[in-house]
Amino acid sequence: MPIYVKLIAATPEADKVVAAAAKICYSPSGAAQILEGLDPARTASFLKMLREAGHLSPFEHASFTFAVEGLSRVATHQLVRHRLASYSQQSQRYVEMTGNSCIVPPSVARSEEALAFFSAQAEAAHECYTKLVALGIPREDARFILPHGAETRLVATMNARELHHFFALRLCRRAQWEIRETAKEMLKAVRAAAPQLFDSAGPSCVVAGRCAEAHPCGEPYRDMEQLLS
Amino acid sequence: MPIYVKLIAATPEADKVVAAAAKICYSPSGAAQILEGLDPARTASFLKMLREAGHLSPFEHASFTFAVEGLSRVATHQLVRHRLASYSQQSQRYVEMTGNSCIVPPSVARSEEALAFFSAQAEAAHECYTKLVALGIPREDARFILPHGAETRLVATMNARELHHFFALRLCRRAQWEIRETAKEMLKAVRAAAPQLFDSAGPSCVVAGRCAEAHPCGEPYRDMEQLLS
Amino acid sequence: MPIYVKLIAATPEADKVVAAAAKICYSPSGAAQILEGLDPARTASFLKMLREAGHLSPFEHASFTFAVEGLSRVATHQLVRHRLASYSQQSQRYVEMTGNSCIVPPSVARSEEALAFFSAQAEAAHECYTKLVALGIPREDARFILPHGAETRLVATMNARELHHFFALRLCRRAQWEIRETAKEMLKAVRAAAPQLFDSAGPSCVVAGRCAEAHPCGEPYRDMEQLLS
Amino acid sequence: MPIYVKLIAATPEADKVVAAAAKICYSPSGAAQILEGLDPARTASFLKMLREAGHLSPFEHASFTFAVEGLSRVATHQLVRHRLASYSQQSQRYVEMTGNSCIVPPSVARSEEALAFFSAQAEAAHECYTKLVALGIPREDARFILPHGAETRLVATMNARELHHFFALRLCRRAQWEIRETAKEMLKAVRAAAPQLFDSAGPSCVVAGRCAEAHPCGEPYRDMEQLLS
Repeated sequence: MPIYVKLIAATPEADKVVAAAAKICYSPSGAAQILEGLDPARTASFLKMLREAGHLSPFEHASFTFAVEGLSRVATHQLVRHRLASYSQQSQRYVEMTGNSCIVPPSVARSEEALAFFSAQAEAAHECYTKLVALGIPREDARFILPHGAETRLVATMNARELHHFFALRLCRRAQWEIRETAKEMLKAVRAAAPQLFDSAGPSCVVAGRCAEAHPCGEPYRDMEQLLS
Repeated sequence: MPIYVKLIAATPEADKVVAAAAKICYSPSGAAQILEGLDPARTASFLKMLREAGHLSPFEHASFTFAVEGLSRVATHQLVRHRLASYSQQSQRYVEMTGNSCIVPPSVARSEEALAFFSAQAEAAHECYTKLVALGIPREDARFILPHGAETRLVATMNARELHHFFALRLCRRAQWEIRETAKEMLKAVRAAAPQLFDSAGPSCVVAGRCAEAHPCGEPYRDMEQLLS
Repeated sequence: MPIYVKLIAATPEADKVVAAAAKICYSPSGAAQILEGLDPARTASFLKMLREAGHLSPFEHASFTFAVEGLSRVATHQLVRHRLASYSQQSQRYVEMTGNSCIVPPSVARSEEALAFFSAQAEAAHECYTKLVALGIPREDARFILPHGAETRLVATMNARELHHFFALRLCRRAQWEIRETAKEMLKAVRAAAPQLFDSAGPSCVVAGRCAEAHPCGEPYRDMEQLLS
Repeated sequence: MPIYVKLIAATPEADKVVAAAAKICYSPSGAAQILEGLDPARTASFLKMLREAGHLSPFEHASFTFAVEGLSRVATHQLVRHRLASYSQQSQRYVEMTGNSCIVPPSVARSEEALAFFSAQAEAAHECYTKLVALGIPREDARFILPHGAETRLVATMNARELHHFFALRLCRRAQWEIRETAKEMLKAVRAAAPQLFDSAGPSCVVAGRCAEAHPCGEPYRDMEQLLS
């Protein structure tokens, strides 16, 4: 039950659209003409300059939509705190939970003893849910007894500016492991779709070459390759 | 363990501030002068006119901050989906959960049999959490086994425009019972602090006298009094 | 110098993406599987149901980017008040204004006398700007003397939910003529790109068959055809 | 006609409210109890720690409302680009402009020759506006000929987090002079109302002791005192 991320929609030619939008600020020409004059090399160097100058608002014109599965409700409760984004999530009010789907954290999986307790408890919670529903308790109330780690799925849309912010926070080693895994898969997906927009992205160790955290983890990533491995 | 809502901060003289902000749109005078000329009766009738005309943006200048306790994580996962608001929530990563605090839905509490299953399971979940922590599992991972109904607490800030939207959605009988209870306590609190801003508020049955839902509940509220009882 | 609107980017297969995102809320399946099972007829009827139920959040997953030219700064000052959107606008700080480009309102164009005053004044304002720049005044200060109606251009991105809100407000006959013209061109463009998302859109006279304004214009649109003519 | 900023509303005891909201994240206690236990010294050191750790979301619970006058439409067009804020602005559609109110940039005021051109032109623009209105042109169209520098007034509300962001951008020497003046007056006002929240604020030269701009101005501020002088 690994985390599954699929990029289901993206702004076509997102690199060029962002570059054209930015260029309109400084140019007497219109966006349509600017778009025609953009070749990949000029786009790449221009986007790099924008990123380095912190002029990130044009990155908002590129939008990315992900389907995410295999994530716990613990993780989605954090994820949806990113407010400059759109979410559609599977409802436990309307959808019956038909089997124990609790996500097992790696720290639990590594300990035979912990895993035994954890699995038995998750199974028992799901049985309790089933009994409550059989007794006539509405699904929306029976779910209170399901584990917080129960699996969920959602569709999330973020623009490239918010994604850069999200990657900076959530790919840091100090972020929760599950949202970090999700962010890693998201970064891989957008790098394939819009390489120039995400040529550099992630925590400050990768982007700026030095840690900007108040309490550093002590193991900064060397580079993008190590981050994504 | 009833839901506890306390208004811990509010824009002073919020009624007048909103009225003055709205009047600046249509007046050659400045806000400071307008503020001085406002008496309660004129403020009230002007705010009513704004609400009825749907000119709600001036309501954004009034801000309200609530401390909320006795709420499940089920409810807060929904609550934080309101993105035009600010939240600070108790962290299960940093705070150890020192006792079973699972919220019991009324539908469960009403059935002796359901309650017995539910309570035993909630207790067992908390014991499992304690065992996992004792085995060295980080709190942020052990919490996966806690019930989704575990109690949490938070501080939330919304402006009066967003509150009107929130009350319209979340005081409808079709909303989840817990978030509905929370919304009811919030409405009582803001009506005491800024009566003219919230003279009329709630679902369409109360505000407009007719249901605007695609699937009506069949039991529209007669008036504000019934809604808040 | 008519208003020019070009849709320069859009979420591919936006209709299907929105439908799949919405379906995930009520389905045990994942978004990828749902996407595969969607045919145009089912998508259309499902989107219609969502619109009518007011369940608009899935519409946020579809994003549209427009290049707009031939618009005055009067209009863009209003346009950028829509905060759930992204803008990149031509800068009068950085770009020299090389000719009188003041937009002429139709009410002025219709009166020979008014047009004569207006045109002479706009020309004089631009000459003054040029003189000020020649005297060493920075462009960002010289522009204070340019007419508020000076032409500008921008790139704007909105999602389909915000677009529906925008069309409801800005296609009403009571909206400013220029932003109304812009909205009309935008609606034509998105209807070509994502017909099912915008099958119905616009002011309440068109969408709901009755006016929802506090002060009706008295000339409600009969239908979409009349609105777009 | 200097820029006039008045703080017309603020969250009472904003320092304490923000500190209590932040503490709830890390504490088993509720916000109401935390509020009682806060003394000024502890609040101040805690807020400093939050700012330095970049944990700024609790600053959103403190809200500040300003009346601003003596500002040009050039400046407000920029100001309203800050989307995490609320604005009510004097309307040129509804309010008749009864006199030449064009803001004179200092660079123009310093040059006798430029000032003469500028003033004559602003006066002529206003006369043209008056003539157009007399000819029956609607105010909303006549205003196209008014200078972009025409004075306006507005009420703006921002929370303390957005204010910190606003001050960082708009108090930099590279920002437009008018919005810089406005930001300076706003910072003075909030420092009087909530000293601990804004103990440190402004561009990176003041806050971090070094410039973070891609193109530094070369004259970094030494400290807050110089910034506000």
